[in-house]
Amino acid sequence: MSLPVSEIIGWEMAEAGQPLRRVRRDVPALSADEVLVRVAGCGVCHTDLGFLQGGVRTRHALPLILGHEISGHVEDAGRAHARLVGRAVVVPAVLPCGECALCRAGRPTICRAQIMPGNDRDGGFATRVVLPGRFLCPVPGAGEDADALLSSVPGLTLRHLAVVADAVSTAFQAVEHSGLTSGGLAVVVGLGGVGTFAAQVAADRGAAVVGLDVDPRRRQAATAAGVRLALDPRALPSKELRARIAEFARSEADAEAAWTIFECSGTAAGQQTAWGLLGYGATLVVVGYTREAPPLRLSNLMAFDARALGNWGCAPDLYPAILERVLSQRIDVVSYTELRPLDEIAAVLEEVQSHRAERRVVLVPDRRKEAA
Amino acid sequence: MSLPVSEIIGWEMAEAGQPLRRVRRDVPALSADEVLVRVAGCGVCHTDLGFLQGGVRTRHALPLILGHEISGHVEDAGRAHARLVGRAVVVPAVLPCGECALCRAGRPTICRAQIMPGNDRDGGFATRVVLPGRFLCPVPGAGEDADALLSSVPGLTLRHLAVVADAVSTAFQAVEHSGLTSGGLAVVVGLGGVGTFAAQVAADRGAAVVGLDVDPRRRQAATAAGVRLALDPRALPSKELRARIAEFARSEADAEAAWTIFECSGTAAGQQTAWGLLGYGATLVVVGYTREAPPLRLSNLMAFDARALGNWGCAPDLYPAILERVLSQRIDVVSYTELRPLDEIAAVLEEVQSHRAERRVVLVPDRRKEAA
Repeated sequence: MSLPVSEIIGWEMAEAGQPLRRVRRDVPALSADEVLVRVAGCGVCHTDLGFLQGGVRTRHALPLILGHEISGHVEDAGRAHARLVGRAVVVPAVLPCGECALCRAGRPTICRAQIMPGNDRDGGFATRVVLPGRFLCPVPGAGEDADALLSSVPGLTLRHLAVVADAVSTAFQAVEHSGLTSGGLAVVVGLGGVGTFAAQVAADRGAAVVGLDVDPRRRQAATAAGVRLALDPRALPSKELRARIAEFARSEADAEAAWTIFECSGTAAGQQTAWGLLGYGATLVVVGYTREAPPLRLSNLMAFDARALGNWGCAPDLYPAILERVLSQRIDVVSYTELRPLDEIAAVLEEVQSHRAERRVVLVPDRRKEAA
Repeated sequence: MSLPVSEIIGWEMAEAGQPLRRVRRDVPALSADEVLVRVAGCGVCHTDLGFLQGGVRTRHALPLILGHEISGHVEDAGRAHARLVGRAVVVPAVLPCGECALCRAGRPTICRAQIMPGNDRDGGFATRVVLPGRFLCPVPGAGEDADALLSSVPGLTLRHLAVVADAVSTAFQAVEHSGLTSGGLAVVVGLGGVGTFAAQVAADRGAAVVGLDVDPRRRQAATAAGVRLALDPRALPSKELRARIAEFARSEADAEAAWTIFECSGTAAGQQTAWGLLGYGATLVVVGYTREAPPLRLSNLMAFDARALGNWGCAPDLYPAILERVLSQRIDVVSYTELRPLDEIAAVLEEVQSHRAERRVVLVPDRRKEAA
């Protein structure tokens, strides 16, 4: 099944604040544990912008090809993963070692030997990427054509599934770990990419979902993602915001269930809004990232017997269940994804940074121009 | 067994910022679910100071007799608790209803119908107190004399066990919920009453315990409470503090275990110190209370896959295990407790507020003067 393969063409970050540059690299010899993935799509994440702007440092020294939200086909594999060759896969954004004490203790996302493409080694803004094969998630029913329609979901291809690698799976694990139950109340703060998927996952679980965003277009669009009450947190004083949500909860959710809040905005304002919603027994899941440190009354956790959980990535063993939900139309990725040529990466990064991108952008290599 | 009983003499808070006043009340008729407890001792807590200074409001309207850390003897009981009469008991500081959905779901400390003495109704700074009998915890082996020595623990009487009602049990639940394991690293921030008990409970569980406090006397005294490394957080830059603790952890604890941090200082500075110690997979338990809102980089929870848990009170079902540890000398309360006459309450509150009290003060009614 292994195809003749000679090179990788990708977009490399050489220095913070500088444009990416197009590079060619030879495909290295694969170790027994590695695979070579031909990229079908690689999503653009705010984490990439964090690296590019220099606020967050990549764990691997620069230069580095970024991109950690990858779907593709396994073109070649080391001994341990020979049976993956030819398979369509989603690459978990965090690839744990699977062997250490943390992995064995069920904490794979904090495995200290974890590999995150585009952070610990070259990533997916490229035609091909070399990675550990251990936790790649095969896509059931996918053939060799990355543009073929998958399952019975209108418009869904392997390329769209790139967003499962990080945005959808991060949201999924956040909901999973929160303990949100059917009939519970979920509040999603920030209805961008990850927030919209968090809303979908929460609604799919049977929760009554409230969404908060300052952008009226996002609030309007969120209805399709299962948000049943969309509010502008800037337009309401904190107390009134709570009251509006409490009123919704009384009529639409289990009266007894504690609130579950998902902070997905990755902004100080969003974090303060989320913190202000803490009540008895509440769970706040911190999904978004910002380097800011807003003032927070930490003691409210104590006074309310509440908790705040950080969520980093997604454990590989959750991916099959996530894919199953996407392939059975329980989670819609097509409407929230935009495919763009990899060659347009500079323009796309601009759009994402200036919040002009309304959907999660997946960069797609042009096979005619770039394949070896 | 029921003794002739006519009145309650207690110290009532009428208004924030004003001295307490000594009052007499008639003992009301007990409902089927209530008991009358003759107070052996009632501990003084910083929560009482919060009420007195007006920063925190009591849930019951003033005037109110404060005090929620109570041990004593059941003198009389309604129908449902007749077999408690004559028993020595510790009164959990939070008495849930035991019937609601939250109680049934194992969340008794956030039961909305919970009764906290000295907050929801008259409390223990008194000769007697009337309370729901449901969750009182009988003291094995205790007789009718509140001054008799208990078990084989030198100096331990029923009066000292008042501190089990809140300080010890709050620390115990905090450790229990944190998931701290034998061989794990525990960092206790603030070595006051609750912090010292948290250190003891953590050490009893087999953890390697680090204690942080700005007060050199407290740091020195903490050794006896199982603290094996005591540091002054003000004397070390945040990075160096982490490094010192990490060095200790490498030699004294499981290298793989994530840190468990107990914020017991109830100060903004302590909370910032505790937050600065968050690392991969860490758990921060917020035990102390302050109304301040220090700047905190909430996203560190996400970046480190860490969590912050609030701890409010202690579930009644944990009390027998706590008492067992105290009665078997695994947790020392005698060295950390000072018995003082209830009549000295004004002076004692002064001492606690000005941090002159080096041990947890338990107020003891003078039976000769005050009993009916």
